[in-house]
Amino acid sequence: MKAEIVSIGTELLLGEIVDTNTPYLATQLSVLGIDLYFTSAVGDNMARLQGVLKQAWDRSDIILTTGGLGPTQDDLTRNAIAELLGEELTVDPKIKQDLINFFAQRGLEMPQSNIRQAMLIPSSTSLVNPQGTAPGWWVEKEGRIIVAMPGPPGEMHYMWENQVLPRLQAKTGAAIITRMVKTFGVSEAKVDEMLADLTPSPNPTLATYAKLDGIYIRIAAKAGSEKEARAMVDSREADVRAILGDIIWGLDDDTQEAVAGRTLLDKGLTLAVAESFTGGFLAHMLGTAAGNEGYFKGGLVAATSEVKVALGLDANLADSEDKAEVARAMAVLTRQKMGAAVGIGIEGESGIEPESGMVPGTVFIAIDSDEADLHVVQSYSGRLYQMKRRAAYYALFDLVKLLKA
Amino acid sequence: MKAEIVSIGTELLLGEIVDTNTPYLATQLSVLGIDLYFTSAVGDNMARLQGVLKQAWDRSDIILTTGGLGPTQDDLTRNAIAELLGEELTVDPKIKQDLINFFAQRGLEMPQSNIRQAMLIPSSTSLVNPQGTAPGWWVEKEGRIIVAMPGPPGEMHYMWENQVLPRLQAKTGAAIITRMVKTFGVSEAKVDEMLADLTPSPNPTLATYAKLDGIYIRIAAKAGSEKEARAMVDSREADVRAILGDIIWGLDDDTQEAVAGRTLLDKGLTLAVAESFTGGFLAHMLGTAAGNEGYFKGGLVAATSEVKVALGLDANLADSEDKAEVARAMAVLTRQKMGAAVGIGIEGESGIEPESGMVPGTVFIAIDSDEADLHVVQSYSGRLYQMKRRAAYYALFDLVKLLKA
Repeated sequence: MKAEIVSIGTELLLGEIVDTNTPYLATQLSVLGIDLYFTSAVGDNMARLQGVLKQAWDRSDIILTTGGLGPTQDDLTRNAIAELLGEELTVDPKIKQDLINFFAQRGLEMPQSNIRQAMLIPSSTSLVNPQGTAPGWWVEKEGRIIVAMPGPPGEMHYMWENQVLPRLQAKTGAAIITRMVKTFGVSEAKVDEMLADLTPSPNPTLATYAKLDGIYIRIAAKAGSEKEARAMVDSREADVRAILGDIIWGLDDDTQEAVAGRTLLDKGLTLAVAESFTGGFLAHMLGTAAGNEGYFKGGLVAATSEVKVALGLDANLADSEDKAEVARAMAVLTRQKMGAAVGIGIEGESGIEPESGMVPGTVFIAIDSDEADLHVVQSYSGRLYQMKRRAAYYALFDLVKLLKA
Repeated sequence: MKAEIVSIGTELLLGEIVDTNTPYLATQLSVLGIDLYFTSAVGDNMARLQGVLKQAWDRSDIILTTGGLGPTQDDLTRNAIAELLGEELTVDPKIKQDLINFFAQRGLEMPQSNIRQAMLIPSSTSLVNPQGTAPGWWVEKEGRIIVAMPGPPGEMHYMWENQVLPRLQAKTGAAIITRMVKTFGVSEAKVDEMLADLTPSPNPTLATYAKLDGIYIRIAAKAGSEKEARAMVDSREADVRAILGDIIWGLDDDTQEAVAGRTLLDKGLTLAVAESFTGGFLAHMLGTAAGNEGYFKGGLVAATSEVKVALGLDANLADSEDKAEVARAMAVLTRQKMGAAVGIGIEGESGIEPESGMVPGTVFIAIDSDEADLHVVQSYSGRLYQMKRRAAYYALFDLVKLLKA
C-alpha cells in the first residue's frame, strides 16, 4: 500500500509552526510497513487543497490529512474531500449532540459555526476526538482510504493511536509492536557495528537514532497477532541485550533521571548533587523529575572556587588543579550537607583556564556513598558544548550501573 | 511571485529526521513577500522526484529544493533538474578544483564519486558551500528560478543567507529587515489587543508568537534599500515600545538570562539563587549561559524543608506555611552564603501538600540585595506544569525591571 501525507493550514506555509505531525506519521507508517512516497503541505485555499487531494487520490492508496477540521470558514478539509468524492455534506445528529454536550460540560453554548464539525458524507465515518471539538473522518471508497485528523499534535496523536492505527492494522492484517532500547556511552557507529548481524532482518527491524542521552535502537515486529508480534520483539530485545549488555539503560519512555530515581528508591537511598561544569543541569533534571520526592534531596551549583569554599569545601582543595579530587570532595560535601545517602560531584574543564593543561570538555564525575560503599571518580571527555550536558547523563548512567553492580 | 519548496530524501519519509529546512525557508519567503503555496517531500527516487519537480515547474515561479546534492548514486537532485530542463550535465573544472582543494586541506584525496558534485548544466550557476562539499545550484530559465540547496541545515542556512537571499532580494527589488521584539508577563491575546492599531499595516508587518519565555512580536519591513527598510523597522519598534512599555525585555537573539547577565554586569553586581519549586531550572539557565563568569556565583536547590535547614535556613521558617517569607529567607541565605550582591529565592505550591490551601502553580519570587536596595517578594500563578519553568522567567524579568527602575 502506498501512502501520502497532506498537512493543511496556511500557518505551515508562513513558517509560523513546525509540522511535527508529518514526521510522527511517517515513523508510524514505516513501522506499519506502509510505503510513504510523498508528503506535502498546502494552505487554507480551496482550489489548491482540492488540487493536492486530487493528485493524492490518483497516486496513493492511503491519504492521511492533518488540519483544516476547525469550525471556521477557513477550515476546508471536509468540504474538499466531499467535493473530491462528489458527495454531499449533511449534519450527523449524534455528532451534533456530542458537540453540544462538549460545550455544555464547560458551561457554554455551542457557537453556531461549530455545526460544521458535525458534518459527514456517505463514505465517511466519524473518529471521536475527546481532546477537542474537531472529530476526524475515516473515508473508504473505491479501494482507497482517506483519514482526516485534526492539526493540534495532542489531538492527532490520540486519534491516531486509539482509532486510526487499530483500523489500519486490521486492514493490513498485521499487528505491529515496537520497542525502543536506550543505550549510553558508545557511538552510533559502534552500536551499528555491534548489531550488524541483526540489522539485515526485515522482520523484526532494527533502526538506530543518536540522541544527547545516548543511542536508541528501535525494534519493530509485524505479525498476525499482537501476541505474536510482542513475542518477536521480546526475543529480539533479548538478542540485543546479549550483544549490548550494560550499555542499555532503559526502554521506551524511560529517562535517565527516572531510571536513576527508580534504582535509588528500590535501594532506599537518597541523592544530593554538586556541580560546577554542568551549571545546574543535573540538579535541574533531578529536581524536575516526576516522583522525585522519595529520593532527591537537592543540589549545589558553584560557579567559582570561592563559592565552593563558602559552601564548605576545604580551601586547600578549591583551587587544586586536581579536578578529580575536587569532584570527589564536592560529592562528599553535598552528601553530608544534605543528609543524603549518595552524593554526586561533577567538575570539568571549560577551557576558561587553559593553563590546567586539560582538554576542554574533560569531566570528572565522583560518586560517593558510605551506605552503598561507593567511592569512585571517573573521567570522560568529548566536545565541550555537548559535555556541558552529557556529563550529567554520564553521572546518572554510572550511578545506576554502580548501584546495580 | 509564487514559490514552492521541495525537500528531497527518503529519510524524511521514514520519519527519521524532522524537516526544519521547510519552516525556515517558509519564514524567509514570508518576510520577502513571496507567496508560498505548496511544500512537499519526496524520497530518493528518480521517477517520483521528476514528477514532483515537473509539477512545481508548471505551477510555481520559484522552486527551492533542499537535499539530494551529496556524492552518492542516491543523490538525484542535479540529474532530475537536468532531465526536467532537457540539459546536459558536465563537469565544471573550477568546482572540481575547489573540491580537490577541500579534501587536500583535510589531508585527503577526493573520492571519485565526489566528481558528481562538480557538475553543472548550461542554465545553472554554482552556489559555493564553505560548510561542506555539496555546492548548490542557481538555475534561471524561461522566467522561472530553481534553487537547489544542500539538506544539512547548517549548510543550507549559510548558503541561503549569503547567496540565495541577496539574489532573491535583487530579483524582487526589495530589501527586507526583520526584528523580533520579546515581551513577558502578558498573554498573546492581550498583546494582540494592545497592538490592534498597528497590525493591519501591510508594511511593516507585525506577527505575534507565544513562547515559554513570553510573547514575541516580529516586525518586518520591505523597502527599496536596506537603509530604508531598517528605518521603517526602527520607527515601528518605537511605536511598539510606546504601546508595550516595560513588558519588553529583549530583541532578536536575546535570552532572559543573557539580558539579566548584561544588566548585572553593567551595575557590577553578582547573583546567587535558591530554588525549591523550579528544581534547579533557574540555576541551570544562569549556570549554562555564555559569559556568566562575571556575575553568576551559584545556586542552591533544596527539595525538602530539612535540606533548607541543613543549608542554613532558620528551622522555625523552614516548615512555615508562609511561602513568601521562606522565599525571602532563601534569597537572603544564598546571597550571604555565596557572597553575592543579589539573591533570588523561588518557592511555590506544587500541590503535593494541598493542606496549604494555595492553588498549585502559585509561586513566590524573592529578590534581595543590600547593594541595590531591593527587598521584594512577588507572587504569580499559572498552570502548575508551565510555572515549574515560567517561575524562573518571572524571576529574571522582575530582576531586570527592578534593577533598571
